Amino acid sequence: MKFEVTIIGCGSAIPTVSRKGSSQLVNHREKYFLLDCTEGTQYVLKELKISLQRIDHVFITHAHADHFLGLPGLLSTMSLLGRTKEINIYAPEEIETFIHTFLTCTRASLSFKVNFKKLNFNSPETIFENKELTIESVPLLHSTNCCGFIFREKKKPRPMIASKISEYIIPHYLISGIKEGDDLILPDGKVIPNHKLTEEPQKSFSYAYLTDTSYHEEIVPQIQGIDVLYHEATFTDELKTRAKQTKHSTAKDAAKIASLAQVDQLYIGHFSARYRSLDVFMEECQSIFKNSHLTFDRQTIKIY
Amino acid sequence: MKFEVTIIGCGSAIPTVSRKGSSQLVNHREKYFLLDCTEGTQYVLKELKISLQRIDHVFITHAHADHFLGLPGLLSTMSLLGRTKEINIYAPEEIETFIHTFLTCTRASLSFKVNFKKLNFNSPETIFENKELTIESVPLLHSTNCCGFIFREKKKPRPMIASKISEYIIPHYLISGIKEGDDLILPDGKVIPNHKLTEEPQKSFSYAYLTDTSYHEEIVPQIQGIDVLYHEATFTDELKTRAKQTKHSTAKDAAKIASLAQVDQLYIGHFSARYRSLDVFMEECQSIFKNSHLTFDRQTIKIY
Repeated sequence: MKFEVTIIGCGSAIPTVSRKGSSQLVNHREKYFLLDCTEGTQYVLKELKISLQRIDHVFITHAHADHFLGLPGLLSTMSLLGRTKEINIYAPEEIETFIHTFLTCTRASLSFKVNFKKLNFNSPETIFENKELTIESVPLLHSTNCCGFIFREKKKPRPMIASKISEYIIPHYLISGIKEGDDLILPDGKVIPNHKLTEEPQKSFSYAYLTDTSYHEEIVPQIQGIDVLYHEATFTDELKTRAKQTKHSTAKDAAKIASLAQVDQLYIGHFSARYRSLDVFMEECQSIFKNSHLTFDRQTIKIY
Repeated sequence: MKFEVTIIGCGSAIPTVSRKGSSQLVNHREKYFLLDCTEGTQYVLKELKISLQRIDHVFITHAHADHFLGLPGLLSTMSLLGRTKEINIYAPEEIETFIHTFLTCTRASLSFKVNFKKLNFNSPETIFENKELTIESVPLLHSTNCCGFIFREKKKPRPMIASKISEYIIPHYLISGIKEGDDLILPDGKVIPNHKLTEEPQKSFSYAYLTDTSYHEEIVPQIQGIDVLYHEATFTDELKTRAKQTKHSTAKDAAKIASLAQVDQLYIGHFSARYRSLDVFMEECQSIFKNSHLTFDRQTIKIY
């Protein structure tokens, strides 16, 4: 069972040889979710031998070039490879316009249905849910409508204590209910409380992807206690004025948010192309929040 | 003095790890011309340390995804890097629509002017000219409006025989005319014919970029005697039916065109993603046209 994040690009508006724009792939128990889709995303996925066709959900934070220019090529390749499965794209409405224009200009139709789901930038919403996971939007403070995304595992089932099944001759059809917390009622009416039949469930983990944004304390309650936080850090402290002007964050901003939200680990990215070495980012982060890490292209972060 | 072509991508609609879609950079005497602009073109140029800002002319053969999806990112990066020089884009009108939609969706304006120049797909035209070079369009036979491009060096100046300058005391202002072929008229009215003052000029070279197209003999007169011909060869002979259906060429088609046009060298590309080894392409080409070569990503072909 996996919950991991592969960094496709950790750069910003101007790509460098080692840092593409923003894109990440979340693999949650072999379900793939793409976060942003910078130019060349399909190439990186191929190099990493990750099947494009396993991606069923794409989340675009905002309509800036470094976050979505890989989308037409990705959809086009999926189609040429014969995809029939629908895909869901959670994005600002400009992305739908852009993809429609692309298809009109190329006189192409895709071999599968695309469901565009418009993001709400005014308040957080649960935008995806399956049996194991919810994904919420987090409105951010950028120069255009932008929101981040939080992946939260749902409460996991309580593992059965194996010996209890034979001890109480528990029928198969009751097991899943007990794993969800039901007590057992025996034929004679006696109640065996759930905690005597099951063990504590595994911890449920969470991951937040927050890019692009100014320092924005209002998000802290929503990301409180997140296990792994990715927060953009476009600049070092020396360029904090530039960060404010362009509605981006510094390494210290990211670390302050991580500290206020008492997250477990902070990863930073969206580094400006002007930086060759990222050492100063790390120093500035760790001066405020010890458990800070840099990201780099093609890295995989294990949430557990 | 250079005339060379760098292959940015030699693949086709579905990119592979080693073959991006179509794009090439022509460097003619340090003037850069981009032919098609597949997704990730800007990354390859950066890796090859080729300055994006030196490209002043972009030629898009047709509005299929593998030929132009790198354009919005390229323009965006040029702008973020502060370009002020105008750029000329010779393309089908769909490309202008696509770029305008991109700029509208991102609420961006570029720091420089883009001059879109609509291609004529009905007959060949000289679409660019400078002191040293002309570029012609070549209407091709594809599933959408498509044309290739021919780079032809103009007749080069005749080098002066140095000793003649002092022998006839030729004033400086007459030199460029003599290099262009003028005779010299001495003060006494005597005429010194040009061939006694100058040497034969260097050969003028030519390069043709023809992709995507069915086998199309009608282009042969226009490319007659070209020095280096790049012709698409998406399939091997085994898939000639598929080539016809999709309006592409086989390796043999490309070689037949090269042979009929009596070009000096043939380079093929636009290989379908289904081929791992390209050996069969080479065998099939060389069975018809000996001086055939494969292309590969990041290769540079010296025209001279």
